[in-house]
Amino acid sequence: MPALQFQLEITDAKSAARAGTITTDHGTIQTPIFMPVGTIGSVKAVTQQQLADPIKAQIILGNTYHLYLRPGMQVMEKAGGLHQFMNWNKPILTDSGGFQVFSLAGNRKINEEGVMFQSHIDGSKHLFTPEKVMDIERTIGADIMMAFDECPPANAEYKYALNSMNLTHRWLDRCFKHFNATPDKYGHTQNLFPIVQGAVHHDLRKASCEYIASKEATGNAIGGLSVGEPEPVMYEICQLCCENLPTQKPRYLMGVGTPWNILECIALGIDMFDCVMPTRNGRNAMLFTSKGIINIDNKKWEYDFSPIDDGIDCEWSHYYSKSYVRHLFKASEILGLTIASVQNLAFYLWLVKEARKHIQQGDFLAWKNEMVPVLKTRL
Amino acid sequence: MPALQFQLEITDAKSAARAGTITTDHGTIQTPIFMPVGTIGSVKAVTQQQLADPIKAQIILGNTYHLYLRPGMQVMEKAGGLHQFMNWNKPILTDSGGFQVFSLAGNRKINEEGVMFQSHIDGSKHLFTPEKVMDIERTIGADIMMAFDECPPANAEYKYALNSMNLTHRWLDRCFKHFNATPDKYGHTQNLFPIVQGAVHHDLRKASCEYIASKEATGNAIGGLSVGEPEPVMYEICQLCCENLPTQKPRYLMGVGTPWNILECIALGIDMFDCVMPTRNGRNAMLFTSKGIINIDNKKWEYDFSPIDDGIDCEWSHYYSKSYVRHLFKASEILGLTIASVQNLAFYLWLVKEARKHIQQGDFLAWKNEMVPVLKTRL
Repeated sequence: MPALQFQLEITDAKSAARAGTITTDHGTIQTPIFMPVGTIGSVKAVTQQQLADPIKAQIILGNTYHLYLRPGMQVMEKAGGLHQFMNWNKPILTDSGGFQVFSLAGNRKINEEGVMFQSHIDGSKHLFTPEKVMDIERTIGADIMMAFDECPPANAEYKYALNSMNLTHRWLDRCFKHFNATPDKYGHTQNLFPIVQGAVHHDLRKASCEYIASKEATGNAIGGLSVGEPEPVMYEICQLCCENLPTQKPRYLMGVGTPWNILECIALGIDMFDCVMPTRNGRNAMLFTSKGIINIDNKKWEYDFSPIDDGIDCEWSHYYSKSYVRHLFKASEILGLTIASVQNLAFYLWLVKEARKHIQQGDFLAWKNEMVPVLKTRL
Repeated sequence: MPALQFQLEITDAKSAARAGTITTDHGTIQTPIFMPVGTIGSVKAVTQQQLADPIKAQIILGNTYHLYLRPGMQVMEKAGGLHQFMNWNKPILTDSGGFQVFSLAGNRKINEEGVMFQSHIDGSKHLFTPEKVMDIERTIGADIMMAFDECPPANAEYKYALNSMNLTHRWLDRCFKHFNATPDKYGHTQNLFPIVQGAVHHDLRKASCEYIASKEATGNAIGGLSVGEPEPVMYEICQLCCENLPTQKPRYLMGVGTPWNILECIALGIDMFDCVMPTRNGRNAMLFTSKGIINIDNKKWEYDFSPIDDGIDCEWSHYYSKSYVRHLFKASEILGLTIASVQNLAFYLWLVKEARKHIQQGDFLAWKNEMVPVLKTRL
């Protein structure tokens, strides 16, 4: 079967924004796209039916680290991969587990071979190497597998960032070698995306982009952003990376971000996004809407019987009122978590669909500049 | 508008089971029926969309005690009642709050006037009287309001049960007096159902049935069962009550019960049921299925990729596998709670629909006797 295809349909005249279509064996993805995060085989508080409608997700993420620990690769393999296991037949992307190993796991020891760490669940010891991570992502059955990288902290000094980037590049070689030596597992084509690192250092980012581009992968990712650096720095590095990564391949900015981050980075040439923000913040009573941000816990919504968001074409967002959702949060009802998560994801998917429409219409930049302050408004 | 109508369509030749149709201003209910419990304005872990499909709920419950405390009657009134507040346009029944006052609230003091109690949330003091409860249920906007009763413990001695029953009867007079003196609140007809009490004492139950029947309400309820007494005693009292309550009015057995309890009590002449068991036990990893009971936490399901219940005509029950749902519970994923709750409610609704079909076909008793041991099976 053919590998992932990217058809670049249009590039905005006034920004670097692009609209395209990614084709995988599990269907097509219209870019720019946001990918809901299905951490442990479930997008938290959301059903697969809701992902399809009203959220209209075109691709979701699985977290390699979490799925490796639970349910484990024996169950995953017997299930026939994550698509079968969770009954989701659209594309799936898996991260490499690197980010969780560096943020969640205990007692990390990094060396050339890989990373030894302890499970955050039971303290058991595990070794992730580039080869092992490729095997795990093969077993999960991701359409898009991410390379195993080291994620340096936001405040990494130049020397640390340089060494880390070089290690990530050596690991990348091993990822590709092992990936190319192993077959697709469940009859659909799997793809490997390399990840640009280099912290906030321009020369490192540029060098990393060149190294990553040399792999001629079907798509490329930018890692190590939105990890604590100021927003302008993130945009600066994002722009630099977009300018130094191939035009004809999708560009994926990992772990970003707020609704306005997404619009700004679309303007810089990013095609794919993921972030836990819509679900995590949703579970903490924050609603993202087409009119701004709502803290639904707030007393001001107690008597507001208007829909949570009547500005988007989503029945769900019109169905439940602010007063009702506030009540659910106050009463600790699970339904509140679901409504907030579905609203936020439906909104993020609406936002990228609108962005795509405006790129196609040729008025993306004006629309983006109008939307950003609205999206930041605290209602 | 006309009050609630009950059309008794058929009574089983070999048992007291009946099939009928209840008509309310929010639509019809085909009996026998099971009513999901929407405690605080939400059927726990379930969306209103899921209640409509795949659960196919025809009527749901609201808990007066919980809704009175949160969101409170000011919000409820401004919302236009619970139908509007939660956006549920089928019938709603409210309990009287009595059961929660006696099981949840603190520092109860009962006297002729009513019950003084402390909120289980903030310790604030409140007084429930028959008149106050009627006002609250009017404000919630229930299609079917339950009378305010005292719920004696299962082991209540004769004298306590007698005094309690008499108090409940006096409160019932006040309920009807106040109900008749107050108008329907939101343009739809509200109905008041009285409740038979009398603990496990035959003569008290018989006397209570006669008193309740004398009210000529549009429907009648049996309270104070499934509160700790042995199952055979529950069936015995249920039968006695069915025999002493009007034939042409729906009979509602409050708070019962397991799937086999429901089939046995349908056989005795009950038309309406409610219980938190499908949702509460679901959240504790117990799945009710057409083949028996599954503890989905159990290791035996780890590699079982078959659907959670392929024996009922519900897409949902075919969609998720046992292995997947077990994984969700092991990983404490909210989706597990939702899948289990929806499965259990869809199963309960399927069960009463099947019962209705077999009553209409004339083979209910044989079907019931075949099903009961299956439903009790621990898989």
